[in-house]
Amino acid sequence: MQLLLAGASGGIGLAMLRQLLREARWVRIYALYRRPSPALESLAREEARLRLLQVDLSSDKDLAALPVSLEGPLNWVINTTGLLHDSESGKQPEKSLQQLQRDNLMAGFEANAVNHLLLIKALEPLLAKRETLKIASLSARVGSIGDNRLGGWYGYRASKAALNQLMHTLAIEMTRLNRQSVCVTLHPGTTDTALSRPFQARVPSHKLFTPAFAAGRLIEVLESLSPEETGRFFAWDGEAIPW
Amino acid sequence: MQLLLAGASGGIGLAMLRQLLREARWVRIYALYRRPSPALESLAREEARLRLLQVDLSSDKDLAALPVSLEGPLNWVINTTGLLHDSESGKQPEKSLQQLQRDNLMAGFEANAVNHLLLIKALEPLLAKRETLKIASLSARVGSIGDNRLGGWYGYRASKAALNQLMHTLAIEMTRLNRQSVCVTLHPGTTDTALSRPFQARVPSHKLFTPAFAAGRLIEVLESLSPEETGRFFAWDGEAIPW
Repeated sequence: MQLLLAGASGGIGLAMLRQLLREARWVRIYALYRRPSPALESLAREEARLRLLQVDLSSDKDLAALPVSLEGPLNWVINTTGLLHDSESGKQPEKSLQQLQRDNLMAGFEANAVNHLLLIKALEPLLAKRETLKIASLSARVGSIGDNRLGGWYGYRASKAALNQLMHTLAIEMTRLNRQSVCVTLHPGTTDTALSRPFQARVPSHKLFTPAFAAGRLIEVLESLSPEETGRFFAWDGEAIPW
Repeated sequence: MQLLLAGASGGIGLAMLRQLLREARWVRIYALYRRPSPALESLAREEARLRLLQVDLSSDKDLAALPVSLEGPLNWVINTTGLLHDSESGKQPEKSLQQLQRDNLMAGFEANAVNHLLLIKALEPLLAKRETLKIASLSARVGSIGDNRLGGWYGYRASKAALNQLMHTLAIEMTRLNRQSVCVTLHPGTTDTALSRPFQARVPSHKLFTPAFAAGRLIEVLESLSPEETGRFFAWDGEAIPW
């Protein structure tokens, strides 16, 4: 079994990687990252099964070059990348309509939706066609339209709804590629990572997960899902989330 | 009562405009268009209540200048603009994953989702705060994630899902601005317009609407909606569509 994980230097990505490396079934794990991380490099020194690949998912050139560095078949593909705020550009989730900015909205759609599908497009020739195939992208409960009662966070909500629609559409196509495939979006719960850090003040401490806890539950959920459940949106506890 | 309609030179937009002009209650109608249209210009010569404004919704400069040309309060705002294919750029809806292109996906998110919200952002100071306020954007049933069983059309589906989430989020904020507000997305049915023309071959003729029929039903639905129904997604026949 071979696995590819994108966002490997992120909070949840790195925690998932650590846990997956404990499982002997993975004979090779490709870890994609954008920003170099000492923790990731140290993991790679310890683990011969782990291959690090620096890939910017917003670069079509990087994506086109990616398959050359990989050997298929890939059995699991997990994408934990995402954008909520950006301290460099000052991008913040919008509290109201007047805070909407074209560039920020477009950057959100690219990072949270478009890049996820373009990664799978690049990987498609390497995806397992007869063995296990599980594809999961991290979404977020706030991307649920039906569950949105508070408003705000326009761009993040919309980009995650777009991701949910794209992955649902992908699931239909992947079923034709591999009848056993499972292709889903996952909600990790509010986890103590750089992404959620500015927004943790109002989260009760028992509802703020460690990256290791969220990672463990997400792996458990993905492991448990069967082909009948492909195309859906699941929380860390296995509960299906409405669109 | 005053109304603003964007996409006035499009098939459904122009048909809605013609029908709305028959109603005496509209003392002024602002019609936004991008490409000049002889039909629209001829309407404006006949109707003193109609004011034409050439606005490119993808231009922040145009949007910033727009409020200067308007007098509030606006009671209805209808946006019929959208992008499915583009004969100039050769953009076509994707039949499969391998047809996904970054630029096409981004153009879809901008035209079908981002521009709709940035228009309302520009208009917000002019929206009616105590009288009737109805805001509607044309979405499409294929944007429904729950209703998506066929797959394909990745970018169009995702951009309409994003629009649905943005308008649902907007509805929550608009309720704070005006407790009587109604803010929804609408599905016109497959209508004989330039947008659907390349895709009509498999539509049974009794299911292909004339622009006049679709326009009439959409106005009827929007007229009938009450504030309790704000934030939802309705078809031309008044049926609520799942997210």
